[in-house]
Amino acid sequence: MGGTSRAGRGEWVSSRPRAERARQAADVLRQQITGGAFPGGTLPGERELGERLGASRNAVREALALLRAEGLITRRRGVGTTVVAAKHGHGLDRLAGLAEALTGHGTVANEVREIGRVPVPPPAVAARLGLAPGAGAVRVERLRRLEGEPLSLDTTYLPGDIGEGLLRRPDLGRELAERDLFGLIEEVAGQPLGRAEVQVHAVAAAPATAALLGVPAGAAIFAIDRLAHLADGRPVDSEAVHIRADRLTLRATLYRAPGPPGA
Amino acid sequence: MGGTSRAGRGEWVSSRPRAERARQAADVLRQQITGGAFPGGTLPGERELGERLGASRNAVREALALLRAEGLITRRRGVGTTVVAAKHGHGLDRLAGLAEALTGHGTVANEVREIGRVPVPPPAVAARLGLAPGAGAVRVERLRRLEGEPLSLDTTYLPGDIGEGLLRRPDLGRELAERDLFGLIEEVAGQPLGRAEVQVHAVAAAPATAALLGVPAGAAIFAIDRLAHLADGRPVDSEAVHIRADRLTLRATLYRAPGPPGA
Repeated sequence: MGGTSRAGRGEWVSSRPRAERARQAADVLRQQITGGAFPGGTLPGERELGERLGASRNAVREALALLRAEGLITRRRGVGTTVVAAKHGHGLDRLAGLAEALTGHGTVANEVREIGRVPVPPPAVAARLGLAPGAGAVRVERLRRLEGEPLSLDTTYLPGDIGEGLLRRPDLGRELAERDLFGLIEEVAGQPLGRAEVQVHAVAAAPATAALLGVPAGAAIFAIDRLAHLADGRPVDSEAVHIRADRLTLRATLYRAPGPPGA
Repeated sequence: MGGTSRAGRGEWVSSRPRAERARQAADVLRQQITGGAFPGGTLPGERELGERLGASRNAVREALALLRAEGLITRRRGVGTTVVAAKHGHGLDRLAGLAEALTGHGTVANEVREIGRVPVPPPAVAARLGLAPGAGAVRVERLRRLEGEPLSLDTTYLPGDIGEGLLRRPDLGRELAERDLFGLIEEVAGQPLGRAEVQVHAVAAAPATAALLGVPAGAAIFAIDRLAHLADGRPVDSEAVHIRADRLTLRATLYRAPGPPGA
């Protein structure tokens, strides 16, 4: 509690451990950075930051160290503090592929690491996709780069018929390198996607995954499960996506529907 | 590429580095665990898991090591592999407080670490809340526990009038310990909340934050920025939330609205 009385009623809070003040300052600064408060990518000096954040020089320094550990900023003598890579936002409001979501933010190019038939898909995957017994699947794995820098590693299982339709496309190599799978699936299926169930995890990157994504082993990354359905409800895309969290933020606008009052 | 030809066209993929097969198996197993495939919390043996995941014993073992590093499972001699703590889902479909979102999953109890007036809020926060020059704010910080175990650390800034309304409540100590702030804000403001802009980051927990949350320093956690508005559009709740990612998954169902075709 560091000098703050518990459940106190409006008293002045004057002394808190520096680590906590630094965290609070880092929280506000992260909001500023990802909210686009520093368009040029260069942060002001410690004194000005201290004024903006209402924090002491020491707290500002520690907050900057926290955000540097997150990979959000870099500090260099003579250059100052700069935002490492603009953190891009991927909306959670609407089902969209990565390239689609990042339209206007740069070019997404995909390295196709694998595409192939999986005659006996893992039963757990077959169940998710609702495959008939004995039905095969097609697996696609891509390392996706934004402006040349790794952004995500996507492994997708498609039902056999959709996958075979994909494999028959004459210009598949280029399409997989340049486009989102969502659009390709829609063209093959002849109908749009409808919905997807998405689960977002934050995990420490395992060494092999970290090496592919170009981050240190153990770095915090997003692991996202996504199961996308066609408009008619059929599940057609079972994905596991690992995303660099230092480059991408997930964004949503949530609305409060009528619910239990004051729960 | 480990034996897989690049952008190959439907060839059988037979040899991939074990680390990659393990990652793919871990991805499927994570989907199973968080999807509730093991209701009792105990995983089957390695052979059965290998069958479900379509993976070798070695790949299964390595996948289990990955998920143990994520904090999702524990392995004990004689007991086997068990799910550490049910991963609870917090919906990103609708604006809800934590206690509200976890209704039916256990009791949320909050340790109030701070509540107090901030006569000169950080200018960055004042701007987010649209405060008049010189206007004060109230800061609330709570460590939230689910069934006794730390789940999240929430720091909230409220505009002065809403905060003062909160401080005047006769039973505030108990209310802050037991309830979501959302319901309290709505009662004080006399109107429901409308929407919130949410940004989700995955970060490595700083030592002080990790200690409060009961995770190792450097563990991957969610850092969430949330700015909630009243139904009339006024911003009233600027929050920074740190959430244990080994205990909570963020969930959403996304719909595909009409957009650029096949982007």
